[in-house]
Amino acid sequence: MHADALVLLGAESMEIPSTWVRPGAAIIRCESALSSKLNCKLKKNGSNYLTLKLNFKENTSNINVVQSCSRWLQEQQYRPWHLHPLKLQPLSPVPSDIEISRAQTPKPINQLAAEIGLLPEELEAYGRSKAKVRLSLLDRLHSRPDGKYVLVAGITPTPLGEGKSTVTIGLVQAMSAHLKLNSFACLRQPSQGPTFGVKGGAAGGGYAQVIPMEEFNLHLTGDIHAITAANNLVAAAVDARMLHEATQSDKALFKRLVPSVNGVRKFSPIQISRLQRLGIHKTDPASLTPQEVAAFSRLDLDPSKITWHRVVDTNDRFLRAITIGQASTEKGQTRETGFDIAVASEIMAILALSDNLGDMRSRLARMVVGTSRSGEPVTAEDLGVSGALAVLMKDAIKPTLMQTLEGTPVFVHAGPFANIAHGNSSVLADKLALKLVGQDGFVVTEAGFGADIGMEKFFNIKCRASGLKPNVVVLVATVRALKMHGGGPNVSAGAPLPREYIDENLSLVAGGCHSNLRKQIHIAKLFGVPVVVALNAFRTDTPAEIDLVCQIAKECGASDAVSCLHWSQGGRGSLELARAVKEAARQPTNFQFLYNTEMPLVEKIRTIAQKVYGADDVEVTPEVQRKIDYYNQQGYGSLPICMAKTHLSLSHLPDKKGAPTGFVLPIRDIRASIGAGFIYPLVGTMSTMPGLPTRPCFYDIDIDPITEEIIGLF
Amino acid sequence: MHADALVLLGAESMEIPSTWVRPGAAIIRCESALSSKLNCKLKKNGSNYLTLKLNFKENTSNINVVQSCSRWLQEQQYRPWHLHPLKLQPLSPVPSDIEISRAQTPKPINQLAAEIGLLPEELEAYGRSKAKVRLSLLDRLHSRPDGKYVLVAGITPTPLGEGKSTVTIGLVQAMSAHLKLNSFACLRQPSQGPTFGVKGGAAGGGYAQVIPMEEFNLHLTGDIHAITAANNLVAAAVDARMLHEATQSDKALFKRLVPSVNGVRKFSPIQISRLQRLGIHKTDPASLTPQEVAAFSRLDLDPSKITWHRVVDTNDRFLRAITIGQASTEKGQTRETGFDIAVASEIMAILALSDNLGDMRSRLARMVVGTSRSGEPVTAEDLGVSGALAVLMKDAIKPTLMQTLEGTPVFVHAGPFANIAHGNSSVLADKLALKLVGQDGFVVTEAGFGADIGMEKFFNIKCRASGLKPNVVVLVATVRALKMHGGGPNVSAGAPLPREYIDENLSLVAGGCHSNLRKQIHIAKLFGVPVVVALNAFRTDTPAEIDLVCQIAKECGASDAVSCLHWSQGGRGSLELARAVKEAARQPTNFQFLYNTEMPLVEKIRTIAQKVYGADDVEVTPEVQRKIDYYNQQGYGSLPICMAKTHLSLSHLPDKKGAPTGFVLPIRDIRASIGAGFIYPLVGTMSTMPGLPTRPCFYDIDIDPITEEIIGLF
Repeated sequence: MHADALVLLGAESMEIPSTWVRPGAAIIRCESALSSKLNCKLKKNGSNYLTLKLNFKENTSNINVVQSCSRWLQEQQYRPWHLHPLKLQPLSPVPSDIEISRAQTPKPINQLAAEIGLLPEELEAYGRSKAKVRLSLLDRLHSRPDGKYVLVAGITPTPLGEGKSTVTIGLVQAMSAHLKLNSFACLRQPSQGPTFGVKGGAAGGGYAQVIPMEEFNLHLTGDIHAITAANNLVAAAVDARMLHEATQSDKALFKRLVPSVNGVRKFSPIQISRLQRLGIHKTDPASLTPQEVAAFSRLDLDPSKITWHRVVDTNDRFLRAITIGQASTEKGQTRETGFDIAVASEIMAILALSDNLGDMRSRLARMVVGTSRSGEPVTAEDLGVSGALAVLMKDAIKPTLMQTLEGTPVFVHAGPFANIAHGNSSVLADKLALKLVGQDGFVVTEAGFGADIGMEKFFNIKCRASGLKPNVVVLVATVRALKMHGGGPNVSAGAPLPREYIDENLSLVAGGCHSNLRKQIHIAKLFGVPVVVALNAFRTDTPAEIDLVCQIAKECGASDAVSCLHWSQGGRGSLELARAVKEAARQPTNFQFLYNTEMPLVEKIRTIAQKVYGADDVEVTPEVQRKIDYYNQQGYGSLPICMAKTHLSLSHLPDKKGAPTGFVLPIRDIRASIGAGFIYPLVGTMSTMPGLPTRPCFYDIDIDPITEEIIGLF
Repeated sequence: MHADALVLLGAESMEIPSTWVRPGAAIIRCESALSSKLNCKLKKNGSNYLTLKLNFKENTSNINVVQSCSRWLQEQQYRPWHLHPLKLQPLSPVPSDIEISRAQTPKPINQLAAEIGLLPEELEAYGRSKAKVRLSLLDRLHSRPDGKYVLVAGITPTPLGEGKSTVTIGLVQAMSAHLKLNSFACLRQPSQGPTFGVKGGAAGGGYAQVIPMEEFNLHLTGDIHAITAANNLVAAAVDARMLHEATQSDKALFKRLVPSVNGVRKFSPIQISRLQRLGIHKTDPASLTPQEVAAFSRLDLDPSKITWHRVVDTNDRFLRAITIGQASTEKGQTRETGFDIAVASEIMAILALSDNLGDMRSRLARMVVGTSRSGEPVTAEDLGVSGALAVLMKDAIKPTLMQTLEGTPVFVHAGPFANIAHGNSSVLADKLALKLVGQDGFVVTEAGFGADIGMEKFFNIKCRASGLKPNVVVLVATVRALKMHGGGPNVSAGAPLPREYIDENLSLVAGGCHSNLRKQIHIAKLFGVPVVVALNAFRTDTPAEIDLVCQIAKECGASDAVSCLHWSQGGRGSLELARAVKEAARQPTNFQFLYNTEMPLVEKIRTIAQKVYGADDVEVTPEVQRKIDYYNQQGYGSLPICMAKTHLSLSHLPDKKGAPTGFVLPIRDIRASIGAGFIYPLVGTMSTMPGLPTRPCFYDIDIDPITEEIIGLF
């Protein structure tokens, strides 16, 4: 019959002859069961079969079942959104980001949600312009084919940044508001620290922004605050536990850990799971031997081997290295440690890589906080805190829906560091967005830093975790950065730009194209994904410079190369890019990882260093080798690699621009994020806590007490 | 004519003969003006006249004006709510708090909001069960008379707490759901730290709870996270500024503080306000003398006199005393300091006392962070950070609407410490609630600790700031606490209760009534407010014990004394209390403050010690006297007093139960919260950072990854 879909009524399972349906069709088996209300839940059953579990009232007729099934089938189809874009009338000169954001009134977020096919019960509004989206959406649209998956990466940037976020937003504004293609941007949530320090906003800029930009840049829906709370609960638990172990006998500890409630001692579930990890398969506290009591009660953490840091979401450099426990109540148990900025927490990386609540709960449990005196890793689960962490993070796991200046949808979710972590927005936001846009739609997601870092991690870490396959890479370049790679003078924040960057200089541009741009295109193609180069055009770029970049980019293997003017024009300025991406997405991809995780750790590091960075080899110190041996012994050897390297050069030396060769990459240290699920080698020192300059930007920030308008924010 | 209200059309002002209208009637004068849209805004004009400013379109007829006026007049009237209570079917034995909370499905928060007369545009939903309420409500209902204002306080408690929150919630459940009186509970937001440490929840308990209790006890709408961010931005600014001042010349500092942007140097508004405080009335940076440049650029903070602490909302005892700045990047500028729990931040006290956004902005600006080497106080405004703080706190200033188990409204807003701060929920929540209930309605608000502390501060600090006058005090007592005050053995958390507290013992009960209960009733009556004693009845209380308490309470001057069973029965168990409060609210009050703020600081402290605590006198050390002299010199002498005293005794000695006399109250230290607006003398040491016990409650807390149900939370 070659049906598009087949619905089987009745509780029994059966084999369907493959000639009954067309290849790829949905096959649905209905099970009837008694329940107080109709409730559809879909489960994947092997690779071809789907089980639609319908619980309906006793008097529900088969007609209702068929209606439910047909409604469900409709939901899985691609449907163009009935999106009402917001009109944009760009001014010249382009006003400040906050002025542009304030001049546009966002649609009520529930209206936007309805336009893109979300059900009211899938939305949790946070004020009028932001909402969390429930993960149940993934169940409802389980069988809807995913849209096209586009990654925005960049060439090696100047310290000023080359505008990946604005390109991302400009691209979806062009696709959704002008080409009427369903499209979604997935962005990282920025740290609040730099908002009051030195950096600009992260909501895009000019006429390619997420609005309201102050909501984006401030508390948003509290996810980073939840991470801070969870991270610091682990830290408090570590130090309090060490104090209690240092001041109590085994027996006293045990009596407190397993207290008598109404005369009965019972292990909590999290304690039973610790007993099992210790190989003690008992459930009655009274039956433990004194040795077992000691093993259970003492984590025996080595104070000099605690790796867990506290975090704050503030640029507070004086917390980089501190001594804690100096009050008399802590009985002399002082210890040196430090704070990182909140987004550097492993919990942020976990949020970004989790696939569902259960997966996040397991990752949180696996986090290693330090090592015992006998050399065993001690986890959050050993501390008994992992359930509480999952409770603190239960809302943070839901992506936040916002909108662009042109009223098109954006997910903001997670923002891990791009050096000590993988620097990508969340797997869950991408997955929700891919279902919402449907098979002819586009999801544009962004990776931190240059393509050698953010894109490599996107492919090897994020796509490995998610199982998703990207269709197109958009590689963002600027004439400014290309000139720098072509041999132009130093570019640094705060200092005026040298003349070379303002006047036409084709030879510097060509130099940058033939070195860094060529190399970054080749890196993307290593993974089997077509590349479109997006030249983020500045006012000072000349037509000849722009043409030269586009021409060389195509010679180097880019499917297409176009310039874009989203910053001054909004989506209209990125139409050419949108068309080029749409075209490139038609090409067949041959996506592949760069390495197999079963390779030895050093081999994986060497593969990245040689194939991506262009190094001759890597250099591993004996101390790093000892740590690698320890990781192998603990069973961490098959985790992927997350390089912590400078983003200012393809090499480990920030000053080496272009495409350096003939260098050996030194691995100075190596660490593990077991909950997030990667090993991170350190190539140089990475700052995980920014500081405030003499005149932080908070000097200009204020709020009008009558109109409640914010001023001075970028 | 004796009209109820009079609307005068036309731009001219005029005097209205008082015979035209009945006493107390609203008199409205309309001013016409051209504007693009109709926009009503009401202003109080002297004590009797009201100005209604109507901006209407050119073609708006007088009819429209009259309609607007009549709509406005209707809004100012009292209207009983059309509240749909949630049905409660209490089980016996009473299940755990989280089980009771989970068994009840809350109304959608926008439905509750509509039932109590909020407009959709006044609501900012945070998920389905919480919403922030905009302060514009106060403008709209400006002329609606306030409801009755009821304070719930308690006798001196045992360390187990005597249930003020449950009484508060039970009372509004009884009033709103059973007696059909408009009524609102205003509660404090609890710290998240203890949720994972040792303390129980703060959402009430049993069948008198705020639901969903896990939302109440966890992040809520992020207010405490906002306070943490604001508090720690100040701290980061303090240390970064000291570092920059220590490493730069006056000239270099000035050039960075007032940078050249496109060749022009300009002061920001916050810098101009610093110049003015320094007596430098210039606006051109180039015109400053070298002395003025130095005075402007150097706060010259004395590192040993920084009073500002960092905060986290975690029970992290190892942060009580720490040394910061030990990384090499901080160039040896180490300093000893500490963290407090977030709710101990002065910013929390400011949130609770602010009247509007502008008032909060000014209080934040006035916060003193330390002293300069020349002895001058240095403020947040001097650091240039106060505008940014107001931006961080712009949503936190809006109270959060939730509901009780019976679907009646609750505001949750602010939760300052009850010792180093005033321990009361926010002025703004009370004001919004008083307008929403209207003149025949009731607002029940709660004060921390015993009446000697929470109630005294409610009257002398909170009511002074708000201008509100309370109608009734509900004084919560338990047979357990009364027996303790009557001479019963020690009660301590964790240890089993001695027999005296389980068996009937009328002489201990009588002893407690004649000492502590009598004294606390008298304290309330000092302020001229009638008292209703609410005996929070336990399963073990006998009828004779209950009768005895009620009888003695009335003999001691209580208007009424009743027992209540809200914990096991919900609102139905508090009907008698509700009727007693309604009756007491009919009595005339003669509210007065205990002291005039113009009295010298020591006199104000002595007044509280003698009249409230029963002390013979106070003892002031020379060091405290030196600080008092300094406060007087700085102009802080007329601030009210916020005593930091143990809550476990009327005296400063926690073991002295009953109503101690014959003691001298020692003032060990004295500090100032200039932004919040009070001086706080310390009577003994106060812990501002709790710790985690050997087995924190997080061992039992977890989440079901499929149903998302939280388990083990109280």
